[in-house]
Amino acid sequence: MTHDDKAPAPPRSTLVITAHAGDFVWRAGGAIALAASRGERVTIACLTYGERGESAKAWRQGKTLEEIKGIRREEAEKAAATLGAEVVFFDAGDYPLLATPELTDRLVGAYRKTQPDVVLTHPLDDPYNGDHPAAARMALDARVLAQAIGYPAEGEVIGAPPVFFFEPHQPEMCGFKPEVLLDITEVWETKRRAMECLAAQQHLWDYYTDLAVRRGVQLKRNAGPNLGLPHTTYAEAYMRPYPQITAELA
Amino acid sequence: MTHDDKAPAPPRSTLVITAHAGDFVWRAGGAIALAASRGERVTIACLTYGERGESAKAWRQGKTLEEIKGIRREEAEKAAATLGAEVVFFDAGDYPLLATPELTDRLVGAYRKTQPDVVLTHPLDDPYNGDHPAAARMALDARVLAQAIGYPAEGEVIGAPPVFFFEPHQPEMCGFKPEVLLDITEVWETKRRAMECLAAQQHLWDYYTDLAVRRGVQLKRNAGPNLGLPHTTYAEAYMRPYPQITAELA
Amino acid sequence: MTHDDKAPAPPRSTLVITAHAGDFVWRAGGAIALAASRGERVTIACLTYGERGESAKAWRQGKTLEEIKGIRREEAEKAAATLGAEVVFFDAGDYPLLATPELTDRLVGAYRKTQPDVVLTHPLDDPYNGDHPAAARMALDARVLAQAIGYPAEGEVIGAPPVFFFEPHQPEMCGFKPEVLLDITEVWETKRRAMECLAAQQHLWDYYTDLAVRRGVQLKRNAGPNLGLPHTTYAEAYMRPYPQITAELA
Amino acid sequence: MTHDDKAPAPPRSTLVITAHAGDFVWRAGGAIALAASRGERVTIACLTYGERGESAKAWRQGKTLEEIKGIRREEAEKAAATLGAEVVFFDAGDYPLLATPELTDRLVGAYRKTQPDVVLTHPLDDPYNGDHPAAARMALDARVLAQAIGYPAEGEVIGAPPVFFFEPHQPEMCGFKPEVLLDITEVWETKRRAMECLAAQQHLWDYYTDLAVRRGVQLKRNAGPNLGLPHTTYAEAYMRPYPQITAELA
Amino acid sequence: MTHDDKAPAPPRSTLVITAHAGDFVWRAGGAIALAASRGERVTIACLTYGERGESAKAWRQGKTLEEIKGIRREEAEKAAATLGAEVVFFDAGDYPLLATPELTDRLVGAYRKTQPDVVLTHPLDDPYNGDHPAAARMALDARVLAQAIGYPAEGEVIGAPPVFFFEPHQPEMCGFKPEVLLDITEVWETKRRAMECLAAQQHLWDYYTDLAVRRGVQLKRNAGPNLGLPHTTYAEAYMRPYPQITAELA
Amino acid sequence: MTHDDKAPAPPRSTLVITAHAGDFVWRAGGAIALAASRGERVTIACLTYGERGESAKAWRQGKTLEEIKGIRREEAEKAAATLGAEVVFFDAGDYPLLATPELTDRLVGAYRKTQPDVVLTHPLDDPYNGDHPAAARMALDARVLAQAIGYPAEGEVIGAPPVFFFEPHQPEMCGFKPEVLLDITEVWETKRRAMECLAAQQHLWDYYTDLAVRRGVQLKRNAGPNLGLPHTTYAEAYMRPYPQITAELA
Repeated sequence: MTHDDKAPAPPRSTLVITAHAGDFVWRAGGAIALAASRGERVTIACLTYGERGESAKAWRQGKTLEEIKGIRREEAEKAAATLGAEVVFFDAGDYPLLATPELTDRLVGAYRKTQPDVVLTHPLDDPYNGDHPAAARMALDARVLAQAIGYPAEGEVIGAPPVFFFEPHQPEMCGFKPEVLLDITEVWETKRRAMECLAAQQHLWDYYTDLAVRRGVQLKRNAGPNLGLPHTTYAEAYMRPYPQITAELA
Repeated sequence: MTHDDKAPAPPRSTLVITAHAGDFVWRAGGAIALAASRGERVTIACLTYGERGESAKAWRQGKTLEEIKGIRREEAEKAAATLGAEVVFFDAGDYPLLATPELTDRLVGAYRKTQPDVVLTHPLDDPYNGDHPAAARMALDARVLAQAIGYPAEGEVIGAPPVFFFEPHQPEMCGFKPEVLLDITEVWETKRRAMECLAAQQHLWDYYTDLAVRRGVQLKRNAGPNLGLPHTTYAEAYMRPYPQITAELA
Repeated sequence: MTHDDKAPAPPRSTLVITAHAGDFVWRAGGAIALAASRGERVTIACLTYGERGESAKAWRQGKTLEEIKGIRREEAEKAAATLGAEVVFFDAGDYPLLATPELTDRLVGAYRKTQPDVVLTHPLDDPYNGDHPAAARMALDARVLAQAIGYPAEGEVIGAPPVFFFEPHQPEMCGFKPEVLLDITEVWETKRRAMECLAAQQHLWDYYTDLAVRRGVQLKRNAGPNLGLPHTTYAEAYMRPYPQITAELA
Repeated sequence: MTHDDKAPAPPRSTLVITAHAGDFVWRAGGAIALAASRGERVTIACLTYGERGESAKAWRQGKTLEEIKGIRREEAEKAAATLGAEVVFFDAGDYPLLATPELTDRLVGAYRKTQPDVVLTHPLDDPYNGDHPAAARMALDARVLAQAIGYPAEGEVIGAPPVFFFEPHQPEMCGFKPEVLLDITEVWETKRRAMECLAAQQHLWDYYTDLAVRRGVQLKRNAGPNLGLPHTTYAEAYMRPYPQITAELA
Repeated sequence: MTHDDKAPAPPRSTLVITAHAGDFVWRAGGAIALAASRGERVTIACLTYGERGESAKAWRQGKTLEEIKGIRREEAEKAAATLGAEVVFFDAGDYPLLATPELTDRLVGAYRKTQPDVVLTHPLDDPYNGDHPAAARMALDARVLAQAIGYPAEGEVIGAPPVFFFEPHQPEMCGFKPEVLLDITEVWETKRRAMECLAAQQHLWDYYTDLAVRRGVQLKRNAGPNLGLPHTTYAEAYMRPYPQITAELA
Repeated sequence: MTHDDKAPAPPRSTLVITAHAGDFVWRAGGAIALAASRGERVTIACLTYGERGESAKAWRQGKTLEEIKGIRREEAEKAAATLGAEVVFFDAGDYPLLATPELTDRLVGAYRKTQPDVVLTHPLDDPYNGDHPAAARMALDARVLAQAIGYPAEGEVIGAPPVFFFEPHQPEMCGFKPEVLLDITEVWETKRRAMECLAAQQHLWDYYTDLAVRRGVQLKRNAGPNLGLPHTTYAEAYMRPYPQITAELA
């Protein structure tokens, strides 16, 4: 809608900004795989490895901080490759992840470099994990700064790409209300394989499979008699903090 | 998404449910004209003529109730024709419009007959006009009843078409937050002509033109550098009470 | 602000719409006494006597329904006279008070007759007493209908008088947030005497005295160093469902 | 806490008020079975059989209205017996279930007869099914009326029993936030057997099993290192519209 | 209400705290001109020049940072003089404006120095511009600190002046609900001239003229038959984060 | 519920985290005295002495900062001893109390050391005092960090103890809704004596006595005919940011 250049348009670009190494897989793996399957470019900005807050098992096994970071990094890279995306690590330190002007500035750089058409991040509230809102807060702030020609960072200013908040672990406790249900049935197997790259969190494989089925049921309940939908539909839920721009109501 | 028949699919169908004769023009004329311009079918269910609550000028001129209904009906039919839609009058009596099971049942009939792919109606709150929420309440209730095979009404059960709330006169006082901004630039002249069919409310022509410009500015602010958008973009704002179903985040 | 007649303007008029006979005393007695003390006219529309839901003591004493209504009526008339207001009883039956088009229509008549400059009523939520929201709902609906020249009722149409919701018994449970703190110190003794007219509810005399003191403390906390305020300031709290119209921010 | 009689106290009593025949099984079967397992009395007031809105399969099989009611009644009675509760049918007609003073009055009778210590019902919002809010609205109204000595109904007035809203099918869309997580692990097998009494809705057996597991995971995340909790904990989620009364914070 | 001194009271004082150089003109120019026209003192604390985030045109023209600051300063000073107010620049740096204890402390100084009777600032939410909430947050924090005798800053402690949030660019997206509508008709020409001092943002002159008309329409809809109001009424909308203190409901 | 050790369980532990020296007395003195009366351990983490923001009288008397801290400390220690609790001072500086990673880290230490079964703190909003939300924010953040084995602090990781927000001075302005009403009648005299240790704030003794009575009235209104409750019941109100975990609905 917004590009009018004569040169061939670059492929659409998606920027995913997450707090910890595993977040993009559980919460947005379907959206990522779908975009990649359409030939689009997906970049995941991972602010931390989740080395302190999301690696309990490794700590109990006596691993060191650096070992844990390495394990998490490797798993995340494998999962990203499975989905067809590139992952970039900011190594900003988790638990707590602190929102700072410096880290926000690095994200401005990521926006200007990737020129995203779509942005995915955490919702702004999560009483169970303060790192998630901190990441989301910086993701939104950096998106606004990156639009300003007066902001001193490398690269071209960006437009105002739509933002989608992916689903947190305890949605009702985070004020999360599904506003968009994305049909991920055709890439479901890919998402499942990406989840299986995260070996330490095997208990979540089935948990997020169940969630995808449940969101699929909701998708069907909001889509009529669904004659054309398969018996099992898999879906992911998102919120939109900004209004949808459209040329047709549907 | 939901039909799998071998027979050629019927054109998409939009059902607009409003309290008073003029509502569909000011608030949703752009969406109606867009759908009609794509060859779709649009049916407007007008629950009342707005004969008591929205015809102050005619009352001051000493017109009778029946005369006023006649004027309003004629104006609305002209406006609907201009937009490319059909309007059906329920003549249920306004100020107050009462939500009753009988009127809701008539709306179930309208749903089953028109088999809508999209539904437009008022938002559920309006401290300035109780008829609007009453119409919206019945529109939503009837939509659910029309889905049930056990509900005794003529026609086929319907699916679960998306619902859009159009913008009320004082949006902030009605809890209205733009969730969808619809680009109506290409049908703007048609909407303006339809507004001009409502002769008694000439002061609103410019008011709603200004609103369309303002929503257009918002549309551009949510769409990036908008290289491809015209200098003046016209838009209408909507809310979604149900989640969007989609195969792609955009 | 709104009258421009040559004849001497009538005194300002306040219309208080309540569910039960005692409500206006506990919740708005200060505002009523203040208006009366300025020579204004105050009319209290009492939809029921509170004969079933707010007269437990009399029922336990074995009184009949008619006896209870008589007691409540007499008490309310004495309290109204003490405050300087007139009370009108609608005898619509409480517990439950039902919101009906007929009763709403009688309220339209009251609006047109009293031509209020100010309207006081209950808030719209009260999980402890459904009669309160029912009264408030009808008070708001009737106010809108009374503005329409097309609505068939005796008397002149009214303007759009400001509405104030008075404080419910359990404010936090009713979504009540003090938006206006009214200084009632100068009429405090009058309000106290009016409360003492309600002999059967003696336990509430001190309860509502304490409340007035507490709201007075809040008033002082929102008014600066309050050099000019007396040691004990009495106040009542209100909400505004419609915006304040003003010529000066203060 | 509230009874001081010399006669042996009657067993605690729970009153469950639901719109349709199956609701109590899916949504509150665990709470019912737990209460019954403690020797308490549980009464389920089923306002309708769900004959029109929740029996699509039977309608498609060509069953008559009376046949469908009979099937639903039988299933519900079997499920209630499995849980250890009694079910009472009001046969008020569903889709739509209308909130009327008469039906509310019948519920007042149920409150006075069962003298509940705990009340369970639907939440007040559900955009997918208007019968649920209608039932909840009447359940709350009748509870207040039943407390008033002046309300003319058989039986003793009741106290102010705590109310719990059970979980709707699409919690986030109904404003449902888990405020109480009830551990139902010890009666899980009973709930599962009760669900299996509802033969026509076999697809929901696993759905609600998954939900119980997920709520169990949440329960553990809100309960610390849960050394004492079994690997799989089953739970049900509830909301409280009224404050909890307690003698100890825990 | 709060001063009891024998010396002649100083003129009333208004403190306006804004993020960027132009904000006070578009959003509160009418309130400022009104106060000035009554002989009151108005001080505008401008935290930044808006040099990075609100000066796109100048950046595109290749101006340097210092040049841009100079232009913005000059324009703002001219606009302030037109309105009859004094403007003070804090030059704290925008995009992002960071909320710091040091900057908050400087604002405490401004409060103690100006001893405001009224405070105007941005609302606390704005998803399109993080500088606005940062300014508002500091404005509110500093107001509380300036009230404390124990806070170490020059000047006398202040009272608790009422605060008004002025209208953001996209009100519905910022949770902005008009709670006060200020009639600015008599100073409208002054506000228009002040807007025209901001040469670089000519497209906003008409935008904010339209807004003033629209808020004027709302003002009339909330003020009855408005016999005394001119055909075109201009207004500004505000919110109140603290309760209104009053001696009369109106 | 969560400990399964063979060694005798330690007594239950409560951790109270407050901004200023007096807060725990006014707002949670009853809960503290109740826990202590059951033989449990209560630790109060006082982040500041309230030396700047809550000691106006002493400043007016010309006391120095250190003198004021000393007075506040002594009073608080006396009050804590009266209630049966231990108080720990962090001396982090008030007005403003700044939320920092360092102070949060010290609170993590307090969590790991006290291993609380219950946590009490301020609510997250207070437009009259920014120190309260800052303390609450850190209390919640530290609780999450203390649960993570990867967070580098002394002591054992903790579970997920329930959190209760105690009542702020102006509850309706802080979004405070009583979700738990705690009966403190049996320790009322102790709480009153603890309040009387705070000599400089004598005007609050009666204020908080009245509040306890009012919350007691609410407790009775939510507890039925309350045959067993004393004529005067004293109560404190709390909110729960996390769901209640229970084995029985009551």
